[in-house]
Amino acid sequence: MALKTLSAKAAAALDQELMSTGAFSIDQLMELAGLSVSQVIYCVHPPNKGSRILVACGPGNNGGDGLVAARHLRHYGYQPSVYYPKRSKNELYQRLAKQLEDLEVEFVGDFTSAVKSADHIVDAVFGFSFSGEVREPFPAVIKALEETKLPVTSVDAPSSWDIETGPPQSGLGSKFNPTHLVSLTAPKPLTQYFKGRHFIGGRFVSPAIAKKYEFDIPSYQGIDQFVEVGADSVRKL
Amino acid sequence: MALKTLSAKAAAALDQELMSTGAFSIDQLMELAGLSVSQVIYCVHPPNKGSRILVACGPGNNGGDGLVAARHLRHYGYQPSVYYPKRSKNELYQRLAKQLEDLEVEFVGDFTSAVKSADHIVDAVFGFSFSGEVREPFPAVIKALEETKLPVTSVDAPSSWDIETGPPQSGLGSKFNPTHLVSLTAPKPLTQYFKGRHFIGGRFVSPAIAKKYEFDIPSYQGIDQFVEVGADSVRKL
Repeated sequence: MALKTLSAKAAAALDQELMSTGAFSIDQLMELAGLSVSQVIYCVHPPNKGSRILVACGPGNNGGDGLVAARHLRHYGYQPSVYYPKRSKNELYQRLAKQLEDLEVEFVGDFTSAVKSADHIVDAVFGFSFSGEVREPFPAVIKALEETKLPVTSVDAPSSWDIETGPPQSGLGSKFNPTHLVSLTAPKPLTQYFKGRHFIGGRFVSPAIAKKYEFDIPSYQGIDQFVEVGADSVRKL
Repeated sequence: MALKTLSAKAAAALDQELMSTGAFSIDQLMELAGLSVSQVIYCVHPPNKGSRILVACGPGNNGGDGLVAARHLRHYGYQPSVYYPKRSKNELYQRLAKQLEDLEVEFVGDFTSAVKSADHIVDAVFGFSFSGEVREPFPAVIKALEETKLPVTSVDAPSSWDIETGPPQSGLGSKFNPTHLVSLTAPKPLTQYFKGRHFIGGRFVSPAIAKKYEFDIPSYQGIDQFVEVGADSVRKL
């Protein structure tokens, strides 16, 4: 199956449409997106392969997806820890963080040293709205993601990559290629530069919306909130 | 494993606590509750056994769980239809109904005749806050649920049952015993009168909250949002 991609601009418009005429709340969408990420982690890295999942959360929606994923991972029996240095003042993010604190999930202050005692890293730093420079304190995170030998699952986009043109040509992030990627709702153009196992999550789009935005709803199986897609199934439009 | 039960009063207090100090939004809790119900339906009645799932939704939170479940069932490939005669003016319920309309889920006006073309019924009419009389137009629904030969999955409580004392001694609802029950977060005392397959859903409670309310978090498996519990595992406190 050839999967069509969604530009950064189209992804932003889709999100807006889901929350306006689509009548979804951001709470709902983030819950289902984060849930799909947690299911992918369980699929590729079940707890018996190492339960220490380090989740790097950025300041925006991508980070929120990471917070939700960390909570579900905790319920699955993992021992997640969360790096969340730029806490949003937004009430939703504060609640998602509180839900983790109530589950005694550890928040770590130093990402680089936390990597040393992790089995798998979730990159929920930047999503489809990222462009330009990686701001402090995240350059050290990108550097650690580039250098680590651990499996890394990126949420929607490998952080630091341009949504359209993929990895930076040189410098920070240019050597970062995560082992797993979960595209939310639909792949973004950057997926053509991605070399790992590729999943799609976010099983909440109606056929009418998919048609309007000209992408295909993938063939989710059973009750799964995610589906794996072949590396050669993403074509450039 | 012996499962402790949660009284109607305790269940209400728990819900309040999850949404205050627990920092959950009702959107989140309802999404996860409804998702767990949809997963139980898939488990007990996969689409190839008949995809016409009729969901009866009451005016309150139990009905909201049903609306969410219907949406997920649609994504799983079922053809759900929804009976929702007392639409709440609450914004959340209106949004949940709109999400179903966008998926072209049918809303039916006559429950009794809709039963004739259904394969399975979800009873999301009344939940743990029910007591007293079954008000119009729901007596006909309870009667149809009593009389049908179809499998019926009740959400949190068989509708018309008293949360503490179970089925009415006589009259409407006294002969209703659904084939499946999904207790949300923890079984209510009425489960001791229930004779079908019993599941628990709502995988979002922290160990601290479960301890405070003196119930056990069941042994959910893998990424499942539900777990089946034995008929003899519920004991009266």
